[in-house]
Amino acid sequence: MDKNYLLTPGPTPLPPEICQAMARPIIHHRTPQFQAILKEVSEGLKYVFQTSSDVFILASSGTGAMEAAVVNLLSGGDSVIVVEAGKFGERWTEICRNYGINCEIIKVEWGSAVDPSEIERRLKANPKTKAVFTTLCETSTGVTNDIQAIGQVVKNSAAVLVVDAISGLGAIDLKSDAWSCDVVVSGSQKGLMLPPGLGFISLSPKAGKLMEGAKSPRYYFDLKVAKKALAKTDTPFTPAINLIIALAEALKKIKRDGLENIFLRHKKMAKATRAAIKALGLELFAPKAASDVVTAAVVPQGIDGEKLVKTMRDTYGVTIAGGQAELKGKIFRIAHMGYIEEFDIILGISCLEKVLKQMGYSFELGSGVKAAEEIFLK
Amino acid sequence: MDKNYLLTPGPTPLPPEICQAMARPIIHHRTPQFQAILKEVSEGLKYVFQTSSDVFILASSGTGAMEAAVVNLLSGGDSVIVVEAGKFGERWTEICRNYGINCEIIKVEWGSAVDPSEIERRLKANPKTKAVFTTLCETSTGVTNDIQAIGQVVKNSAAVLVVDAISGLGAIDLKSDAWSCDVVVSGSQKGLMLPPGLGFISLSPKAGKLMEGAKSPRYYFDLKVAKKALAKTDTPFTPAINLIIALAEALKKIKRDGLENIFLRHKKMAKATRAAIKALGLELFAPKAASDVVTAAVVPQGIDGEKLVKTMRDTYGVTIAGGQAELKGKIFRIAHMGYIEEFDIILGISCLEKVLKQMGYSFELGSGVKAAEEIFLK
Repeated sequence: MDKNYLLTPGPTPLPPEICQAMARPIIHHRTPQFQAILKEVSEGLKYVFQTSSDVFILASSGTGAMEAAVVNLLSGGDSVIVVEAGKFGERWTEICRNYGINCEIIKVEWGSAVDPSEIERRLKANPKTKAVFTTLCETSTGVTNDIQAIGQVVKNSAAVLVVDAISGLGAIDLKSDAWSCDVVVSGSQKGLMLPPGLGFISLSPKAGKLMEGAKSPRYYFDLKVAKKALAKTDTPFTPAINLIIALAEALKKIKRDGLENIFLRHKKMAKATRAAIKALGLELFAPKAASDVVTAAVVPQGIDGEKLVKTMRDTYGVTIAGGQAELKGKIFRIAHMGYIEEFDIILGISCLEKVLKQMGYSFELGSGVKAAEEIFLK
Repeated sequence: MDKNYLLTPGPTPLPPEICQAMARPIIHHRTPQFQAILKEVSEGLKYVFQTSSDVFILASSGTGAMEAAVVNLLSGGDSVIVVEAGKFGERWTEICRNYGINCEIIKVEWGSAVDPSEIERRLKANPKTKAVFTTLCETSTGVTNDIQAIGQVVKNSAAVLVVDAISGLGAIDLKSDAWSCDVVVSGSQKGLMLPPGLGFISLSPKAGKLMEGAKSPRYYFDLKVAKKALAKTDTPFTPAINLIIALAEALKKIKRDGLENIFLRHKKMAKATRAAIKALGLELFAPKAASDVVTAAVVPQGIDGEKLVKTMRDTYGVTIAGGQAELKGKIFRIAHMGYIEEFDIILGISCLEKVLKQMGYSFELGSGVKAAEEIFLK
């Protein structure tokens, strides 16, 4: 079979109008034509980020935007709190340490969400904390953290709340302003339905103040320079022009669909996927904090998890994700994020059933698909 | 008129097969399918860079790759020599200073190339110099520096030679290995005929050794991590997938055309453009070191340079570039780089003639086009 279906937590499939936008002849970035697009996407991003603050667009992957958050807020020797509930939480620590920042780490068991009261405790114990680094959806474990509750805790401290929303933004709810998220970081290849290559970062006034004193060395990711440029509807360096043109299309689609409807669709797809996993007799990896953008399931006893993912992809063209780092071979992950709809989930579950059956796992054929159909029928 | 013609020094026009490649459905980056492409482009880049060293691909603009050069080679307190012959030479100084690096600056009059013997003199006077930063084509002034001669000077010192070849690579000759260029930096939106969003950087063994001791803080641009990933045909973070897929098409085209033929085409287009400029009674801005990728001309007395560029673009759809920084309004620049051929130059000159005539500049209509035609006929 040579048709490809993508059910991975980034990149996610591209709507046809976005593919077509990517193919347009290039235009120059210092023209009224491009400035009009830059203005349009700057407004559209505020809608998706649910913020009135500026959202900066970087020519980088999401990790570049994470680094931008660290270097624009902090100086070497500063102290921060990092929530590590998976691989992407650990990335915050790695970046901070490379810049000489002291990290107080809240280690959360992989598969669980952080307890907001633990953040409160640590903030009280470390009153000099300048920032709290968190992850909206920890893609590596399929967990969503309760950012709203965390925002309640952090807003009463001197620290700013930084949220890695690379996975999740535009797919599940994140009210940047209402939930007191000072810095929200994202990327293009997830909920925004674009190819990878754009990073995004928003800064609240509280974060803007912190930026004034930040001494970490930086150039490409310097948001003070980006801020001056944005005020003139410009970018400091050559932007990723055609990705930004495609972003305009993505934002139009998101506005047309409506954020609330998009969130509901993701909730339903997640519910159906979880129901299917359970109907197949499989165990959810994160039953208490399961994310609405990616479902992680435990590979059953006696089944080779890496082979399962590989066979689905290389033999049947259905790409899901395996486990990362310590979870390699132990879990598999089905994403339901971005330009994915219910019948994409059905085909993914069907392919999972086929390969599990071929690998000798015992269950009633069709039971996963049926469980998902029941959810979608409601 | 609503048809657009792009004669700017980045972005440059996209060949149709590259537009089409950009529009393909996205694939996942951690698959054998993408790994095969990554392997192919890694080899193809060596051909274009004329090096046997690894060329790293970054999801960033060219400036990101410039920062990667600085932070991977140097530590705060190190001393370097920077050739400043225009805006892009100055960018090296800005990046270095932001990382606490001491810059010995060779200030070259805008419109001139650096004298390699001046680099030799400074290297002797500053034996602790760790790196010499140069620019292949200083797009801001339309000057090409003599990198071959500079390489001869630097290779006998302890310093590494770093070349910003963002403008020029794949369009004019740059023999990285044969000319002893230790680090060559480039971007996608110039000679490589791609949209912006990819940065490139090659590292010679001498540069690799320097990298071992470099202590500048870094994460996203850390090439030690990228090197480990590349050895497994992988990237440390999500790469700009569809740009890399389009890069494969660009490299195929470059190989098919042949580097030597491409260099000849650029030489001829540059010669024709310069002949046209002179035939119109205009003065070249950099007559002694004129670049083969962009021609800078002095705006004649009594003509509003910014209006000239604006009218060509907004009324007739022909986008050329004006002057930057201190040259704003004083020069205009016609690029002949990448997917540009002789009749694109003809139409650009024709549009220039039309607008100059409308603005009251006195010359014989058709004389510029004729001078260019004479060159192309040979």
